[in-house]
Amino acid sequence: MNRLPLNGLIVLEFSQYLSGPSAGLRLADLGARVIKIERPKGGDPCRQLPVKNLWVGNDSLNFHAINRNKESFTADLKNKEDLELVKKLMRKADVVIHNFRPGVIEKLGLAYKDVKAINEKIIYAEITGFGRRGPWAQRPGQDLLVQSLSGLAYTTGNGGDAPVPFGLSVVDSICGNHLVQAVLGALVRRQKKGIGAYIELSLLESAIGIQFELFTTLFQKTEGIRRSRVNNGNPLLGAPYGIYKTADYYLSLAMMDLHQLAAALDSAALKTYSREEVFQKRDEIKSLIAEKLKKCTTAYWMNRLRQQGLWAAEIYNWKDLTNAGGYKVLQMEQSLGTEHGTVITTRCPIVLNGKKLVSSKAAPALGAQREAIIKQLIAD
Amino acid sequence: MNRLPLNGLIVLEFSQYLSGPSAGLRLADLGARVIKIERPKGGDPCRQLPVKNLWVGNDSLNFHAINRNKESFTADLKNKEDLELVKKLMRKADVVIHNFRPGVIEKLGLAYKDVKAINEKIIYAEITGFGRRGPWAQRPGQDLLVQSLSGLAYTTGNGGDAPVPFGLSVVDSICGNHLVQAVLGALVRRQKKGIGAYIELSLLESAIGIQFELFTTLFQKTEGIRRSRVNNGNPLLGAPYGIYKTADYYLSLAMMDLHQLAAALDSAALKTYSREEVFQKRDEIKSLIAEKLKKCTTAYWMNRLRQQGLWAAEIYNWKDLTNAGGYKVLQMEQSLGTEHGTVITTRCPIVLNGKKLVSSKAAPALGAQREAIIKQLIAD
Repeated sequence: MNRLPLNGLIVLEFSQYLSGPSAGLRLADLGARVIKIERPKGGDPCRQLPVKNLWVGNDSLNFHAINRNKESFTADLKNKEDLELVKKLMRKADVVIHNFRPGVIEKLGLAYKDVKAINEKIIYAEITGFGRRGPWAQRPGQDLLVQSLSGLAYTTGNGGDAPVPFGLSVVDSICGNHLVQAVLGALVRRQKKGIGAYIELSLLESAIGIQFELFTTLFQKTEGIRRSRVNNGNPLLGAPYGIYKTADYYLSLAMMDLHQLAAALDSAALKTYSREEVFQKRDEIKSLIAEKLKKCTTAYWMNRLRQQGLWAAEIYNWKDLTNAGGYKVLQMEQSLGTEHGTVITTRCPIVLNGKKLVSSKAAPALGAQREAIIKQLIAD
Repeated sequence: MNRLPLNGLIVLEFSQYLSGPSAGLRLADLGARVIKIERPKGGDPCRQLPVKNLWVGNDSLNFHAINRNKESFTADLKNKEDLELVKKLMRKADVVIHNFRPGVIEKLGLAYKDVKAINEKIIYAEITGFGRRGPWAQRPGQDLLVQSLSGLAYTTGNGGDAPVPFGLSVVDSICGNHLVQAVLGALVRRQKKGIGAYIELSLLESAIGIQFELFTTLFQKTEGIRRSRVNNGNPLLGAPYGIYKTADYYLSLAMMDLHQLAAALDSAALKTYSREEVFQKRDEIKSLIAEKLKKCTTAYWMNRLRQQGLWAAEIYNWKDLTNAGGYKVLQMEQSLGTEHGTVITTRCPIVLNGKKLVSSKAAPALGAQREAIIKQLIAD
């Protein structure tokens, strides 16, 4: 299997929890050899961060999901000999990733300038919570806290309700994605021009980045952007955008022509509004739609909406989804063979030349590859 | 400015709305020359999709946010002469992106095999809504509809409430990010091995991909994953994870030791729970915390939480954020010079060698670069 795009590349991941490690995971799935550099005592603290209190041996199930397909090299970076080993490893590395708080890596003597002195062409990428400067630089860079400060929690839920966080660590994921893009862009350049790169990302910049449509609107418009009071889907979009209750469940309505919707719902009241008014009278129109949809079942409305060619969908929970043919055909599941039995997880969403990127290699035990890596990459 | 990573690369973007164009935007910000291939009549329909009913000339403000830093080449792909021009352009291109529904590109004669016959080393990347096969293949690939079907809407909001969509087009963004990663990975390989690539992504695979922690948990655990009935933050995480009301506003609590939290809140009741119980008795514990936090102000609690070194944050709306020093220091804003005045938008979140990736080049008028591109890239 020598044909994955990043085959032959070595990535050193000094990272913990999700943002940095999710970037390492993607690079590994694209073929890179990703080596986690971990503290001898405990390693990546994600090993001890459970979700739903599930464990695989001594490590959290969550750690396994994020760190499959990687190796582990233990090193006490405050110990001179270990630090020397890591520096030797850096000579062979193509990419270094870390997500320490500002100041930590400098104290260890592993800032970009230090690593560049060892390996001129290194691509060095770091994630902080809030950037290296400014009043928030030393705040903990955690997903929910960045959602809280970035305005992201105000995009979701109904106006009048509390701000609502996204129900997963979306900022960590997005920032990890941005890091992969920057690293790969820099690799493309390095192959052409022979130069390395220093890449900086922060959770807050990524959280603002994903809200780029909203901020562009905010910069243009003096009056505020508000969530709908009813059935909010996206504070920027007019009626009917959102999820609605039906007689038996829910359905969602995306962007669509209001008068076509009026026809599908057989609503004379909706027909009296103009297309302009989907913004001005958004919440009033949405309330009317909500009242109408409550009266019949999801199947009934979906049938009528489809006849008009309108963008609507049923709402599935995870069980509905995993039972659906539209899910099964994607073959999103893959098995990892761990020492403690099989763990099933999702694969990388990228399909390359018709092949799904899968790897059955489980997350490493702490320090599992230390001796092998010393022999292969350091001892010579 | 010849030093951006993707300088010299040509990307043809046959894309509309957000997922494909957001990928093109990132490639442009990294230095690629991104040419939108658009229908002569109306072009990318995003030009006519307003948010908050805001326009810049004849195009929506939203189109400007997504398509800055690109060129526009109009071509009627059903017209033989125009198709011939596009095929000639493909000889010079490095990357082709499209997000048509399955079947559309094949009818035009521009499927991967067709383009590969013209340009052996092309990197060809496509986004569909639900993949090319299976019962959902022909469904409209729209963000909210994929959130609805992928279980994503069940991660957010409180248990017992309706499913809550994320308040922005997170699936489009994530899928666009995945596409950029795959394209850049393939470019790294092409430079080494001289081979092109065919990349397939779908909104649904990306929506499942971003839920990888949740699905891994689901595959392991027979009993269901449920949103907290109160203050839900992430259905996988135990108490206290979530956003809470205080006497004057809100605050968020991330992962933290329950007994340290009990100390910060001076709550004897909280101290009676064990660490294991943050999962088992999640909603009960969260209700206790919610009752306590209501009684004093955000500033009061933040002070006490910080003293314990706990991960907590105030909740900012967009105005609070853009007024904060922690925002200003990031310099996220950039100006675009459009024919109709200045538009302020956010920059790419990546910082490279200490430089923010900015470009003042506005989105193109429909077909603005057609003649220039014919002269430069086709006529010779």
